[in-house]
Amino acid sequence: MASTKIEIPAGYVTGILGASGGYDEGHLISTEDSRRFCGVATFLKAPLLKDVVEPTVGFVGIPFDGGSSRTGGSQFGPRGVREASFRVSGYNSELDVRPYDIHNLADCGDLLVSPFSITDTYRSIELGLKSLLDRGIVPISIGGDHSVTLPLLRAMHAKHGQLALVHFDAHCDVSDTQFGSPYHYGSVFRRAVEEKLIHGDKTVQIGIRKHYHRGEIEFVRSNGFEIITSRNLKEMGADIRNQVAARLERLKGHKVYVTYDIDFVDAASAPGVGSPEHFGPNSFEAVEALRAVHALAADIVGFDLVEVSPIHDVANLTAYLGAQLLFEMASILSPTRKR
Amino acid sequence: MASTKIEIPAGYVTGILGASGGYDEGHLISTEDSRRFCGVATFLKAPLLKDVVEPTVGFVGIPFDGGSSRTGGSQFGPRGVREASFRVSGYNSELDVRPYDIHNLADCGDLLVSPFSITDTYRSIELGLKSLLDRGIVPISIGGDHSVTLPLLRAMHAKHGQLALVHFDAHCDVSDTQFGSPYHYGSVFRRAVEEKLIHGDKTVQIGIRKHYHRGEIEFVRSNGFEIITSRNLKEMGADIRNQVAARLERLKGHKVYVTYDIDFVDAASAPGVGSPEHFGPNSFEAVEALRAVHALAADIVGFDLVEVSPIHDVANLTAYLGAQLLFEMASILSPTRKR
Amino acid sequence: MASTKIEIPAGYVTGILGASGGYDEGHLISTEDSRRFCGVATFLKAPLLKDVVEPTVGFVGIPFDGGSSRTGGSQFGPRGVREASFRVSGYNSELDVRPYDIHNLADCGDLLVSPFSITDTYRSIELGLKSLLDRGIVPISIGGDHSVTLPLLRAMHAKHGQLALVHFDAHCDVSDTQFGSPYHYGSVFRRAVEEKLIHGDKTVQIGIRKHYHRGEIEFVRSNGFEIITSRNLKEMGADIRNQVAARLERLKGHKVYVTYDIDFVDAASAPGVGSPEHFGPNSFEAVEALRAVHALAADIVGFDLVEVSPIHDVANLTAYLGAQLLFEMASILSPTRKR
Amino acid sequence: MASTKIEIPAGYVTGILGASGGYDEGHLISTEDSRRFCGVATFLKAPLLKDVVEPTVGFVGIPFDGGSSRTGGSQFGPRGVREASFRVSGYNSELDVRPYDIHNLADCGDLLVSPFSITDTYRSIELGLKSLLDRGIVPISIGGDHSVTLPLLRAMHAKHGQLALVHFDAHCDVSDTQFGSPYHYGSVFRRAVEEKLIHGDKTVQIGIRKHYHRGEIEFVRSNGFEIITSRNLKEMGADIRNQVAARLERLKGHKVYVTYDIDFVDAASAPGVGSPEHFGPNSFEAVEALRAVHALAADIVGFDLVEVSPIHDVANLTAYLGAQLLFEMASILSPTRKR
Amino acid sequence: MASTKIEIPAGYVTGILGASGGYDEGHLISTEDSRRFCGVATFLKAPLLKDVVEPTVGFVGIPFDGGSSRTGGSQFGPRGVREASFRVSGYNSELDVRPYDIHNLADCGDLLVSPFSITDTYRSIELGLKSLLDRGIVPISIGGDHSVTLPLLRAMHAKHGQLALVHFDAHCDVSDTQFGSPYHYGSVFRRAVEEKLIHGDKTVQIGIRKHYHRGEIEFVRSNGFEIITSRNLKEMGADIRNQVAARLERLKGHKVYVTYDIDFVDAASAPGVGSPEHFGPNSFEAVEALRAVHALAADIVGFDLVEVSPIHDVANLTAYLGAQLLFEMASILSPTRKR
Amino acid sequence: MASTKIEIPAGYVTGILGASGGYDEGHLISTEDSRRFCGVATFLKAPLLKDVVEPTVGFVGIPFDGGSSRTGGSQFGPRGVREASFRVSGYNSELDVRPYDIHNLADCGDLLVSPFSITDTYRSIELGLKSLLDRGIVPISIGGDHSVTLPLLRAMHAKHGQLALVHFDAHCDVSDTQFGSPYHYGSVFRRAVEEKLIHGDKTVQIGIRKHYHRGEIEFVRSNGFEIITSRNLKEMGADIRNQVAARLERLKGHKVYVTYDIDFVDAASAPGVGSPEHFGPNSFEAVEALRAVHALAADIVGFDLVEVSPIHDVANLTAYLGAQLLFEMASILSPTRKR
Repeated sequence: MASTKIEIPAGYVTGILGASGGYDEGHLISTEDSRRFCGVATFLKAPLLKDVVEPTVGFVGIPFDGGSSRTGGSQFGPRGVREASFRVSGYNSELDVRPYDIHNLADCGDLLVSPFSITDTYRSIELGLKSLLDRGIVPISIGGDHSVTLPLLRAMHAKHGQLALVHFDAHCDVSDTQFGSPYHYGSVFRRAVEEKLIHGDKTVQIGIRKHYHRGEIEFVRSNGFEIITSRNLKEMGADIRNQVAARLERLKGHKVYVTYDIDFVDAASAPGVGSPEHFGPNSFEAVEALRAVHALAADIVGFDLVEVSPIHDVANLTAYLGAQLLFEMASILSPTRKR
Repeated sequence: MASTKIEIPAGYVTGILGASGGYDEGHLISTEDSRRFCGVATFLKAPLLKDVVEPTVGFVGIPFDGGSSRTGGSQFGPRGVREASFRVSGYNSELDVRPYDIHNLADCGDLLVSPFSITDTYRSIELGLKSLLDRGIVPISIGGDHSVTLPLLRAMHAKHGQLALVHFDAHCDVSDTQFGSPYHYGSVFRRAVEEKLIHGDKTVQIGIRKHYHRGEIEFVRSNGFEIITSRNLKEMGADIRNQVAARLERLKGHKVYVTYDIDFVDAASAPGVGSPEHFGPNSFEAVEALRAVHALAADIVGFDLVEVSPIHDVANLTAYLGAQLLFEMASILSPTRKR
Repeated sequence: MASTKIEIPAGYVTGILGASGGYDEGHLISTEDSRRFCGVATFLKAPLLKDVVEPTVGFVGIPFDGGSSRTGGSQFGPRGVREASFRVSGYNSELDVRPYDIHNLADCGDLLVSPFSITDTYRSIELGLKSLLDRGIVPISIGGDHSVTLPLLRAMHAKHGQLALVHFDAHCDVSDTQFGSPYHYGSVFRRAVEEKLIHGDKTVQIGIRKHYHRGEIEFVRSNGFEIITSRNLKEMGADIRNQVAARLERLKGHKVYVTYDIDFVDAASAPGVGSPEHFGPNSFEAVEALRAVHALAADIVGFDLVEVSPIHDVANLTAYLGAQLLFEMASILSPTRKR
Repeated sequence: MASTKIEIPAGYVTGILGASGGYDEGHLISTEDSRRFCGVATFLKAPLLKDVVEPTVGFVGIPFDGGSSRTGGSQFGPRGVREASFRVSGYNSELDVRPYDIHNLADCGDLLVSPFSITDTYRSIELGLKSLLDRGIVPISIGGDHSVTLPLLRAMHAKHGQLALVHFDAHCDVSDTQFGSPYHYGSVFRRAVEEKLIHGDKTVQIGIRKHYHRGEIEFVRSNGFEIITSRNLKEMGADIRNQVAARLERLKGHKVYVTYDIDFVDAASAPGVGSPEHFGPNSFEAVEALRAVHALAADIVGFDLVEVSPIHDVANLTAYLGAQLLFEMASILSPTRKR
Repeated sequence: MASTKIEIPAGYVTGILGASGGYDEGHLISTEDSRRFCGVATFLKAPLLKDVVEPTVGFVGIPFDGGSSRTGGSQFGPRGVREASFRVSGYNSELDVRPYDIHNLADCGDLLVSPFSITDTYRSIELGLKSLLDRGIVPISIGGDHSVTLPLLRAMHAKHGQLALVHFDAHCDVSDTQFGSPYHYGSVFRRAVEEKLIHGDKTVQIGIRKHYHRGEIEFVRSNGFEIITSRNLKEMGADIRNQVAARLERLKGHKVYVTYDIDFVDAASAPGVGSPEHFGPNSFEAVEALRAVHALAADIVGFDLVEVSPIHDVANLTAYLGAQLLFEMASILSPTRKR
Repeated sequence: MASTKIEIPAGYVTGILGASGGYDEGHLISTEDSRRFCGVATFLKAPLLKDVVEPTVGFVGIPFDGGSSRTGGSQFGPRGVREASFRVSGYNSELDVRPYDIHNLADCGDLLVSPFSITDTYRSIELGLKSLLDRGIVPISIGGDHSVTLPLLRAMHAKHGQLALVHFDAHCDVSDTQFGSPYHYGSVFRRAVEEKLIHGDKTVQIGIRKHYHRGEIEFVRSNGFEIITSRNLKEMGADIRNQVAARLERLKGHKVYVTYDIDFVDAASAPGVGSPEHFGPNSFEAVEALRAVHALAADIVGFDLVEVSPIHDVANLTAYLGAQLLFEMASILSPTRKR
């Protein structure tokens, strides 16, 4: 398999014929330049899993929106983010890091899902994620609606035990049964607490600004969640990264899972989501809030990014933002992850 | 490499983790069903070239629109058609054939191109196509603007000699130098005649309806091109397939190359192109005209589909039409192609 | 309740304050003119069910797309068609009829559905439709994806016995289990035959042009379905209405149910559907095909219109077409329906 | 009429068949859940006026854009906001209030307007609003372009006398005659001062950032308007609610009318307006500015929201924002309004 | 002024600096090539009126949509068509003519209109058109909604007497007063008959397919209009040009005015109009119908094209179609027009 | 030529027939009002160059995007900004100035460019700009992609010598050769330094937030560029104008050129650009940063605005922002410019 790496020297180009097909005599056109727009679309232009020797960080798509009661479309999130990845740069100047230098990134493809059965889908997601964890891969999952996070947490919990959680979102997602179903995109963290997948008192929800009923507020309070509302973020001005980091400090030393619902971001910057919400952090504030988890890098066991819905997007704003958030996540993961 | 085929039993699914990653115990979700929307987007969901044993038909993208003087965007044609491929079926009821049964289809990735140099791009395309031809692959190339057809014809000519040509288009593309450049999307077939890549008297242009000046008409006449205008097609009513086939009969026995500019199709059905033109064949008439080349199947040495421009598309009409035309092309290619 | 009719003289205006609130002294602005754009959006501007005395024809929405395995959005079909209704005229010059003169039209609202359970939804649809049938209303149901037609047929069957079926569609919808579920938008008419809701040999499918596998063709053949393909329609030229009517002649005297999947119409005229298909009848051909059932008017026991998906629509083409098709359906229903 | 309330237990669902038609045996699907997307679209899902016992707060649409000299489309504002209402929640966590608990909300339908006569339209609006005021309803009117506010003020003035005004807008709207007409969307507050409908020295304009000529500035100065520019708001940082409230303090005890032109909001958050303007408050700042009038709740006699233009909207950002602003207005209105 | 023609050799380029500013030493880039996309947008790239010596054919914009009762936007028709003109070719191969060779084309700018007064606008249009007619210019007017045709007919009548009329439209436009106004986009030809501007028995309406009430049919019958419905056109197949021409033959020798409402064209080809209608002629049929008036070329005294509404357009389909129809109109006008 | 000014009294209306054609008897409609939407679209509604006596400030379009390696579309920037200009006001209340009072503004049309040759285009741009400079015009150029700034700087340098530079952008644009070409939109300022067109130590880059590799940072550091990142701007809060002005203070007394890549602005406010970037200044912050150069007004020798790409725009947000930025630029230019 090492030969695969030689065939694709830059390490993260898939499907450029010149590079793999051998006709590139005289190097008349640089494959490095061509990465800008050539080839099959993968997450951050990473090679497919089977072509990567010793993958350390794996992107995996979960094209499921059957947990949404109103507006679907996040089923196409993985495809939209792959497609938008072509504009992402290789170098992160904010964190002064090149993820491709410190990780063997892989696009692990999509997990199997059933549009007609949340139960079947949950089992498939759990199994699929476990197969990645078994190979020592730190997963960055791309939904799909937020309901996919529950089986992801189940798989993470099976390997790492009860987790601390950093949750970016406009909504608490702690509703109860809807239409008779306990499992849907609005009940994930109620279920996660009940199943003891996460520690309520080590759960921090960031960006909250819309509630469906008072019951949500009561649930998060009684379970010890810490809430940093969208208003709180606004009050931090340009100092979000530091102030949020200070609030997350207490999670250090625990296994931390980070779930990022892109409707956390204000609707003007992220219109292409299932439930766009106004009154939220702009894209700068939103990425700064994510960068706040950098301090926890050594403890992070996985990320997910959910609710990108390309069919509602305009000018690819949301899909591109999603791709950039993946890039930040990969940049945040500590180099010590690399063996 | 045979194992690759076993890993992906249906032969044309890429990047579905359950299928290749081994966690699919008990077959809780069918990979066959999942092909509908899961996985990395490839042309007609074909596996990547390197994963195919003895490929017989290869799709190859050419993301170049530097030969267009007005509206670009066909640079993104390969990506758009790959993405839209997820809705294409596996069975062609019109021709009663399953392309996947008779061919080893492959997505060969994209050829290297330079947005800043037509000359470099032309050389790269020619080399790239030759590398496919050398492996015995019948190429179906996806542009890019129509200027890419010239180097494709050069490579085809190097292998097969001077060619007969079936050319679907709203425009003749026989203009001369523009902005001082002899090479652009409007001069391809003037150059192809001059370079003796094609036989003028074995060239049939179908769908023509817009001329930029009288000189175009004089050129095609003096070089013996046969023209079937858009009006001619309209006069054939629902009998296009037979009547066009009759006109193509005389090409039998010659090596035939088929180039399909998607602006051949009426703008209402194909708005997402560089130069959409009204007054053309609707999608039914357009696909029937393509099916007319079925009678020449044994003689066809290659296809291309050009000018799909996703950034101008609406509701993915054009990209999906493009994907369906690829499916027709693969269906048309004679099973004898398969070794 | 008779007073309600007096308050809204034209019989089909809802939510115009001037009409119901009594301030319209001196008739300074005509409510008749205002129907063009004022008021709450209802199907064909019909009053709500509870405001109609002796309703004879009822429109009812079914906002469910949980039976779709790929692209949702038909959940919003009822809302989109209501909204687009404002442009529909009151007089049908083709059939020389004013539906509002011969029927007491009503907007019956939406049936309850569950996005998480096809089974629950099916039961609710069946119960809901029965409640309308019990009141002597001829239902025109608006989906929702095509999976909703099965419970509609169950309710129709309970009242009318085994039915003849006229089915407009690009697809046969006779697939079997998908993702382990027997019930979805692609299996409706297989199930309807199995449950003996319809007579296979009195089923006519019109507009068929895409098959997923040979098995579909075998099923419809072995069950005696008559198929009028999209190509057949094209061959009829401008004479579709008569020729299709001739083919439907044999259904006379049987209870006929008409189901109209708007993807029957070519994608250029109806882009806003779950599975838009090229190569189909244009809007003129599509409405003429529907008008062919006029000859069966006395036998028709119900209509449905499914798969309008406003989130994929452009320029409201599809929603407005849907509203016009409802108008044709109401026009077709024989005046003898009115008591 | 009380029975109406019983039929629709949650008080604000219209047109769900299960709820009103009686087939909902065994409660297989909850109407509460179904409010999320089922039924005829009304403002905030409120029942229609005639179905409400003792309405206290009434939403009323004014589909008129004949007062705009450049870009129309706000004619469709009422429909767009009704449609977008389906995503609004029932609970306002910022103000800790459920409007449905403290008010009997009603959708009063649309007022009659004439696209060809501002004069006729003005008279109809005035009469229509008076009919609501006569019933003791606090009106929240939804335009339409800003020209509709003049007859609204006339009706309010007839009942409440000369008014204090809080005016959210990017523009002062104090131009004089345009194209020979004294009445249009740019002259409303000049006319309102001249007609002594409002007190110039109790008028506060918030968000101003675009002037057409110096004369506007002179007019507002000489009439004692207080101006809080968009820049002023930016300088308040996250403290807008308090600081604006402080500036409005002096209006307490006077009858206050609040008019909210949605172009007050920055164009990135509200693109779907007649005259979108950059350089304005983002959605958070915009809703905080509105919440500043909470302190005046006991004095507010009416609201309007104007200039939502769905045909220019993207991703429903503006219509949904409009629906949320209605929700804030209803939340702000003091519970003492409820009898 | 003759020098202007020398400065712009091709006769129809406006605002290309190289051509008029003198720096184009050595002709490094051809202005002929540059006409494809450079310069200020004018109708068919024609020079502005004041720069043309002896103009023979003049395009004039009428940016007025105040005669529309439902959906505006045609106010922007002139701008949209100018913009889309850049893609129109210079040579008409169907009629084998180059309009620029036989006419001195001019863009006469826009007529003054008032969005608030149909009456003022009507007077301005009439005066404006007369000023062009006085200079011997054959006008091709671009609306604006169809209400603008009445004052155009008044001006034409003042010069040429009572006119024969060829009217392309989906609607008859013979309604009576609406909202109390006799003048609007739906009453034009009723008024034109009443004012004896046109001969009812020399009026041919083509493409009609939607009526608002039976009264329209009675009016056109009793006034001797000849109707060629959309269905009639469909029955002509590909022979529309000849068959329509045969029907128009009887108008020869009379002064003929041609008015073309772009909603004549099927909504799939022309979605960007005030009142898009399905069931109409596709773009090929629509342009063939227009070409049928070629036989009347010597009698035509003017054209108009109305109802292009760019804000509703998709992919510029309608604006480009409008520009092509202008090109056909200019091509149709007999060379004898040129002095 | 003076008569031209009399014909168009307001000085900045082109192509309104009433104003220039003389039919406007009785002034029934004001040309001043009509400027809002009538006439041929020019930059800020300025007259064309040849119609202006003693032009002092000239807008000139450069429709070239052949220097972009990924997403074109800025070729249409000049047209898009002209079109969007119709909404720009005449009075700048922030700077209390009316540009039309202090300058003779002119729309100089477009420079000739070749889509196939950067070299030819560069020479044409340089020659074209020189011809404007020779007439004493201060140029405000509208691209086109950022590659056009290099020949603009060459022409500016030829007249003014080595320049100080204020550069607004998300990217440094100091990459080296790409695809073998030294000239493209990403290498402009590397080349400008190498060619000694600008002083590295008098170059200030504002808004930087995306780097492609570390080499860019090294280049700007080693050449003495001053960088004000997007983060730095965020930290300035609402005080951007003053703080940036303070940083620019040191450029006073040097000839200053200002180049404004509209991707400087956050993607939510400016989605219609070649390379939209999140995490940037909102429109308020972006215009305030531009206003900071007001203090340098006496030293500014030219402006450009690049990368507006209308084909990627939504709701015209970007084109209108571009037009407003031109308006700010014209407002900033010192009245002493006027002779």
